[in-house]
Amino acid sequence: MPLPRQVFIAVVGAGGVGKCFLSQLQGLATKLSQSPGTPYYLSLIWLSTSKKAVYHADYRSLSNWESEIQNATKPTLPLSELCEYLVKAPGKVVLVDNTSNQDVADSYPNFLKKGISIVTPNKKAFSGSYELWTNIFGAASNGTGIGGYVFHESSVGAGLPVISTLKDLVETGDEVQKIEGVFSGTMSFLFNSFQPTSGGGGKFSAEVTNAKEKGYTEPDARDDLNGLDVARKLTILARLAGLKVESPTSFPVQSLIPKELESCSSGDEFLQRLPEFDDQMDKLKTDAEKEGKVIRFAGSVDVPNNKVKVGLEKFDKTHPIAALKGSDNIIAFYTKRYGDNPLIIQGAGAGGEVTAMGVTADLVKVLRLLH
Amino acid sequence: MPLPRQVFIAVVGAGGVGKCFLSQLQGLATKLSQSPGTPYYLSLIWLSTSKKAVYHADYRSLSNWESEIQNATKPTLPLSELCEYLVKAPGKVVLVDNTSNQDVADSYPNFLKKGISIVTPNKKAFSGSYELWTNIFGAASNGTGIGGYVFHESSVGAGLPVISTLKDLVETGDEVQKIEGVFSGTMSFLFNSFQPTSGGGGKFSAEVTNAKEKGYTEPDARDDLNGLDVARKLTILARLAGLKVESPTSFPVQSLIPKELESCSSGDEFLQRLPEFDDQMDKLKTDAEKEGKVIRFAGSVDVPNNKVKVGLEKFDKTHPIAALKGSDNIIAFYTKRYGDNPLIIQGAGAGGEVTAMGVTADLVKVLRLLH
Repeated sequence: MPLPRQVFIAVVGAGGVGKCFLSQLQGLATKLSQSPGTPYYLSLIWLSTSKKAVYHADYRSLSNWESEIQNATKPTLPLSELCEYLVKAPGKVVLVDNTSNQDVADSYPNFLKKGISIVTPNKKAFSGSYELWTNIFGAASNGTGIGGYVFHESSVGAGLPVISTLKDLVETGDEVQKIEGVFSGTMSFLFNSFQPTSGGGGKFSAEVTNAKEKGYTEPDARDDLNGLDVARKLTILARLAGLKVESPTSFPVQSLIPKELESCSSGDEFLQRLPEFDDQMDKLKTDAEKEGKVIRFAGSVDVPNNKVKVGLEKFDKTHPIAALKGSDNIIAFYTKRYGDNPLIIQGAGAGGEVTAMGVTADLVKVLRLLH
Repeated sequence: MPLPRQVFIAVVGAGGVGKCFLSQLQGLATKLSQSPGTPYYLSLIWLSTSKKAVYHADYRSLSNWESEIQNATKPTLPLSELCEYLVKAPGKVVLVDNTSNQDVADSYPNFLKKGISIVTPNKKAFSGSYELWTNIFGAASNGTGIGGYVFHESSVGAGLPVISTLKDLVETGDEVQKIEGVFSGTMSFLFNSFQPTSGGGGKFSAEVTNAKEKGYTEPDARDDLNGLDVARKLTILARLAGLKVESPTSFPVQSLIPKELESCSSGDEFLQRLPEFDDQMDKLKTDAEKEGKVIRFAGSVDVPNNKVKVGLEKFDKTHPIAALKGSDNIIAFYTKRYGDNPLIIQGAGAGGEVTAMGVTADLVKVLRLLH
C-alpha cells in the first residue's frame, strides 16, 4: 500500500481572488482525498490578509478558514518568518500568493530556494525588474528537485491558457513572431462600448463613468487608464518569448490620462474633468470610422524586431480584436508554424472565479510534479 | 552533482506527423542536453513504419533516423514484442504513437500497465469503445508511480490547447455546460468557401474538388464528408467532460455523403456524381441566407442534457463560428464561470507541424513528471 500523500498549502491574500481560490481549494481537496487510487491530502496551514494571519504552530490544518480569518487576532508575520514557519512543515509546501503585493513578489526567490513552490496571479513578480525575473527562475526548480516550482498562468488573461500556450510554443521550437491582443477587461469593455463595430457608442468620459459604475474598473479608474496593467502583462509575455525587457516602463505605453489631468488629486476630480477631452477622443473615433475601422486599446510584442508597445490602435471591423464582446480579452499568437492565421485565445480575462481557476489549475500541476 | 537523466523514446509512425515530430524531437533533445542545470538525454531507441523498424538490441540511440529507416530491412515487430523490448530498456520509456492505427491504440493498456508512458495524436484510442477508454485510464498512472502517463492533446484540434483547457476546467471544479465548434480543417475550409459571410461562394461539389486539389481533404474526400472524424473528436471531448459516450456512432452524426452515393465504388466516382446534389446544398445556403445566416459543419456537446451531435447548422454571420477563416478550427467552452461569453480557442487544427507540436509539448510534460 502506498502511503497517504500530503501537501501543505499556505495562502497569502483573502480578497476577491483569494476567497474564490479558497473555495476552489476546498473542492479540490475533497476530490483528491476521495481519489480511488492513492488519495491526496491538502492541508491549509496558513492564511493571511495584509493585517492578520491564522496558523497553528503544530501545522494542524485550519478547520474553517472563513470564520478563523474573520475572528483572527494574531498580526501577520514578516515574510522571512513565514518562510521559516513553512520550511519546517513536515512535508512539501506550496505558497499561493493571491495578492498583488510587490514585497511578497520580491520574496519569491527566498521561498523557492528553500524548496517551497509558488503559484500566483501576482503580476508584480514577473513584470518588475528583469533582475527579479532572473532571480525567481534561477531559484526555481528546473527539474533537479532542488528549488520549488513556480507557476503564474493567471498573471496574464486570468484563467485563459495564455502562458502555458506560449511556453509550449517556445519549448517545442516554434518561432513566435508576434503576440497581439486586448489584455485588459476594463479597456475591452470601454472601447467595445465607446465604438461598437455596429456604430454608435457614447462620449468617452461617460463610458469611463459607466464602466466604473458597473465595477469594470479599479476603484480609481486612472489605475486602468494609465496602461500600466497592460504593460505589465506584455512584459511577461515578451520575456517568455525570449526578449530581455527591463521593466514595464522600458517601452512605449500610451496613457489615456490626458497630460493636463495628471495633477488631479483624486479619481473623482479626474472623472469630473475628463469630459473636457471628449472632443479629442471623438476625433480619434471619427478618423477611424472614415477608414472603416474602430479604435481599441491593444498591446503587441514584435519578437524579431524586439519591440513591445501598448496603446490605441485602429483595427478593421472584421478583425477579431475589433469584434470582441463585453469585457473579453483576446490574445493572438503569430508563429512560424501557425502561419497567416494566428492561434487565438479569447474569453473573460478578469474576475475572481476565472482568475482563481488559473491558480487552482497551476496548483494541480505542481501537485503532480511534487509526487 | 545529480546524475545525468536519460529517457528512452520509441516512435511508431513516420508519415506526415511522424516526420515533423522527429524533427521537433531532435531540436528538443539538443536543447535538453545543453540545459545549464542538469542536462537531460533523450535516446531514440525505436522507429517503425507500418512495415519496417529500426532499433538496436542493446538500446543504443539511432544515430540518423532518416537514413536508418529509409535503408531499414528488418520487418517491424508485433506490438507484444515491441512492448517486451521496451520494458527491458535500462530506464524510463515514452512511446510516441504517430499513427492513426486501431491496433496500436488497442495495445495502450498493455504498455501503460508496464510503466511505459504514451503521447499520441491517435484519435482511435480515445474515441473507440468506452471499454478501451476505461482500460487506458485505468492502466495509466494517477500519480501513484505504477502505470505510465498518457497524454493526447493533438487528438482534438492538433496543437491547439483544447484538451488541456477542458481538463483544467473540469479539475478545478468549473461546470462545463456546452462545448461547440468547428473541429475539422477540411469542413472549415469547405464551408468558409461554399458560403463566405461576405456572400458568394461556388457550387458545393466544386468546393469539394477544390479542397481536395489543395490538399485539405483525405485522399478519399468521403473520409472527411462522412463526419466520423468530427464525431471522434466530439466523443473525446464529451468523455472528458464526464459523459459516458459509448462510441462515435452512438449519437447523431450527419454525413454529407448523399444516400444515393453511398454505393459509389471509388472516391473518383463519388466526386463525379456529387454535382447531382448541388441543388440540395444550394437550397440550404439560400435558406440560411434568407435568415441572415450561413451554414457550417459543427459539433456540440450539451453536458447537462447528455447530448452530442455533429452536422450542419446555421449561424449568425457575426457568430465566431461563422467568421472563421481558411481551414481554422474553433472551439468554444461555455461554462458556469465563463458565463455568457465562452472561452474560445481558435487556429489551425490540422497539419503536420502543429499536430507534432501538440505531441512534443505532451512529451515535455511527461518528461517533467518522470523526473
